[in-house]
Amino acid sequence: MASTLNINTSRINADLMESCQWGSTPDGGMNRLTLNDDDRRVREWFISQVKKYGCTVRVDAVGNIFATRPGTNNDLPPIGLGSHLDTQPAGGKYDGIVGVHSALEVLKSLHDNKVQTYAPIAVINWTNEEGARFPPAMLGSGVWAGKFSPEYAYERTDLKGVKLGDELERIGFKGNVPASREANPLSAHYEVHIEQGPVLEAENKPIGVVTGVQAISWFNVELRGREQHCGTTPMDRRADTLLTAAQMIVAINGIALSIPGSLASVAVINSTPQSINTLASVVQFNIDARAKDDETLARLEAALEKKCHEISKEAGVEIRTWDRFWNAKRTVFNERMVGFVRETATENGFGNRDIQSGAGHDSVYTASRVPTSMIFIRCKGGISHNPAEYSSSEDIAAGAQVLLGATLKYDAY
Amino acid sequence: MASTLNINTSRINADLMESCQWGSTPDGGMNRLTLNDDDRRVREWFISQVKKYGCTVRVDAVGNIFATRPGTNNDLPPIGLGSHLDTQPAGGKYDGIVGVHSALEVLKSLHDNKVQTYAPIAVINWTNEEGARFPPAMLGSGVWAGKFSPEYAYERTDLKGVKLGDELERIGFKGNVPASREANPLSAHYEVHIEQGPVLEAENKPIGVVTGVQAISWFNVELRGREQHCGTTPMDRRADTLLTAAQMIVAINGIALSIPGSLASVAVINSTPQSINTLASVVQFNIDARAKDDETLARLEAALEKKCHEISKEAGVEIRTWDRFWNAKRTVFNERMVGFVRETATENGFGNRDIQSGAGHDSVYTASRVPTSMIFIRCKGGISHNPAEYSSSEDIAAGAQVLLGATLKYDAY
Ligand SMILES: NC(=O)NCCC(=O)O
Ligand SMILES: NC(=O)NCCC(=O)O
Repeated sequence: MASTLNINTSRINADLMESCQWGSTPDGGMNRLTLNDDDRRVREWFISQVKKYGCTVRVDAVGNIFATRPGTNNDLPPIGLGSHLDTQPAGGKYDGIVGVHSALEVLKSLHDNKVQTYAPIAVINWTNEEGARFPPAMLGSGVWAGKFSPEYAYERTDLKGVKLGDELERIGFKGNVPASREANPLSAHYEVHIEQGPVLEAENKPIGVVTGVQAISWFNVELRGREQHCGTTPMDRRADTLLTAAQMIVAINGIALSIPGSLASVAVINSTPQSINTLASVVQFNIDARAKDDETLARLEAALEKKCHEISKEAGVEIRTWDRFWNAKRTVFNERMVGFVRETATENGFGNRDIQSGAGHDSVYTASRVPTSMIFIRCKGGISHNPAEYSSSEDIAAGAQVLLGATLKYDAY
Repeated sequence: MASTLNINTSRINADLMESCQWGSTPDGGMNRLTLNDDDRRVREWFISQVKKYGCTVRVDAVGNIFATRPGTNNDLPPIGLGSHLDTQPAGGKYDGIVGVHSALEVLKSLHDNKVQTYAPIAVINWTNEEGARFPPAMLGSGVWAGKFSPEYAYERTDLKGVKLGDELERIGFKGNVPASREANPLSAHYEVHIEQGPVLEAENKPIGVVTGVQAISWFNVELRGREQHCGTTPMDRRADTLLTAAQMIVAINGIALSIPGSLASVAVINSTPQSINTLASVVQFNIDARAKDDETLARLEAALEKKCHEISKEAGVEIRTWDRFWNAKRTVFNERMVGFVRETATENGFGNRDIQSGAGHDSVYTASRVPTSMIFIRCKGGISHNPAEYSSSEDIAAGAQVLLGATLKYDAY
């Protein structure tokens, strides 16, 4: 069956452009931060779409949306096909969005071809995957998987101090179904996503067979030095908080460069008080630390902590907070599910290779509970979290086609 | 006369505490940013005080307040005694405020003792000396001296985008007298200020005879790199804007350390977009650069610019803005006025020494137009721009006493 059923290339790409009307920016990118008004509009659009294709819709207590198409055996938990519709503040039209649209296109293809699956199929939009507005990332799927409590999610605040729980209520997406795998069970989870890296493009292959995801930790760091007059305080009598933060940022980069298979980045910084002639008293920044496996990440984290404490001591600037507030262990996807993806890609004649993901995905959390795997599609220049993010219509169609085939294989199995 | 007339120690210190009720913070410091409601209240208090002591009050178009006590020859421009009542966001009760109170106390002493001066005396509160809310610093005195136009001052914006001109109108302090030395002439300017440095304390002397002020420049720098995914972008394929800024901040500090008599500080930084997993696209920061003389400052500035451009090139991150938006040349105060201060301090038995100021003051701009000098008083630990800023009641009284004596000497001359 997989070999005869085809997704509709023009429909999936037209749908994608339609849903990107909410939150698009003049530079061709997207700014659809979780639970803002554009996120509400695209959620409403998503629900109107799936309803046309015979789905029942459940919204859980953290706003995850499950659109379920019945199978012949509805006692079985559905096979989940999910990703996310939220974006970075200066993001693109592909990260996450393509995954939801791939699932939607599978739904439409099954419907058009009157295919009855054995298990039900659930098309899922997970809440707050990006973690850009409400850190950490993958929060909705994390609550579903029992990694975070709903209360923890509700208390996450954005830069303006607004809480996720209040925003859920404001936009009408605090559903009445409990947010948990018990209340909304799945039998498996597949996710299409853009690679967000340069490997597939370099090897001229449209499809990546994702075998796992690297380990990730996020830190919140707060330094406390001394506010002093920039014009009267000798250079050697300072406890200069921002200078200390700068030394740490340079050191963090150097350490990641020195540990193969690791990455460390500082992208957020805030300094108080914002006065040109007063040395900063308090500086806050975040570290995004990743590694190919948990051991390497542990080594990276230890080196970062040691070095930053040395710098702090030397500078006479206190590390008031050193908080690893998020860690997602390295994920290895289900072998059988990975095999279905690989077989389907090859059967369809799509060049493919096995690949480990550098980015975190909702599939990391579903994988902790149910058989999971992912399908990557090639993206231009490996660019992501940037308005210039791009995947071609053909590659998008290829991803959806593989998702369709792999889903039917899993269903048959 | 100078030897017999004494200022009132308890009154000046009580007045100081009274006026610091507006804008005081729980940590013992002050947050009375220019033209906020507390600044309005203390301005109203100041006006009610000077009116009780027989002054006429003129508010100019940028909110500078001139309270003039007539002399016997009112065709002469008044002798100005001024400083500022605005503070840093996390500042102390002494920087600037002590100067206005010293002038006020001179006024009260002259009045109580029925002293008729030859020239009129003007007690002045200059607007926005700190430059904390509306950079650059010393803006009100700079407009008076013709260094900035009133329109330039009106267009200065704070971090929230509020304009100085609008705030002047809001609090009712956009006066109808033109802001210029022509409309409000002075014959001289004296200013008492806390040292804001550690020299007088170290030498156990209450009074500094200020001979001049070091040269100052402020820069606005904006960098543009690439927003990229922190988890998928290899460490060696980044144009990391915040890392580049951090490298510059470390280099700026190193350069100032290597040039004797120079200082360079970065206290303000802002990074966009604030997302933990997206490398910053744009980072803005300010440099406060100073040196003992203009030649050294020029050398410092050239070295900073060269090094930052090298770092930018190496990183592939563009320097979109490199704007020296403020420069105040090194100031040498009037020799006769400096002499009057030195003589008065010595006659009163106050230990004193000549000193050059590290901080800028309104006297920098008055000095460009009329004979000017300053009196420093000792402050604890050289700490300033910090809630812990402190000068003793005795030292405050000493400063006011020297101001009174030096004023009468200038008036007699
Ligand atoms: N796919 C993606 O960009 N997810 C955001 C979570 C992460 O930072 O990796
Ligand atoms: N006195 C004082 O702190 N003035 C502010 C201007 C400067 O930065 O030096």
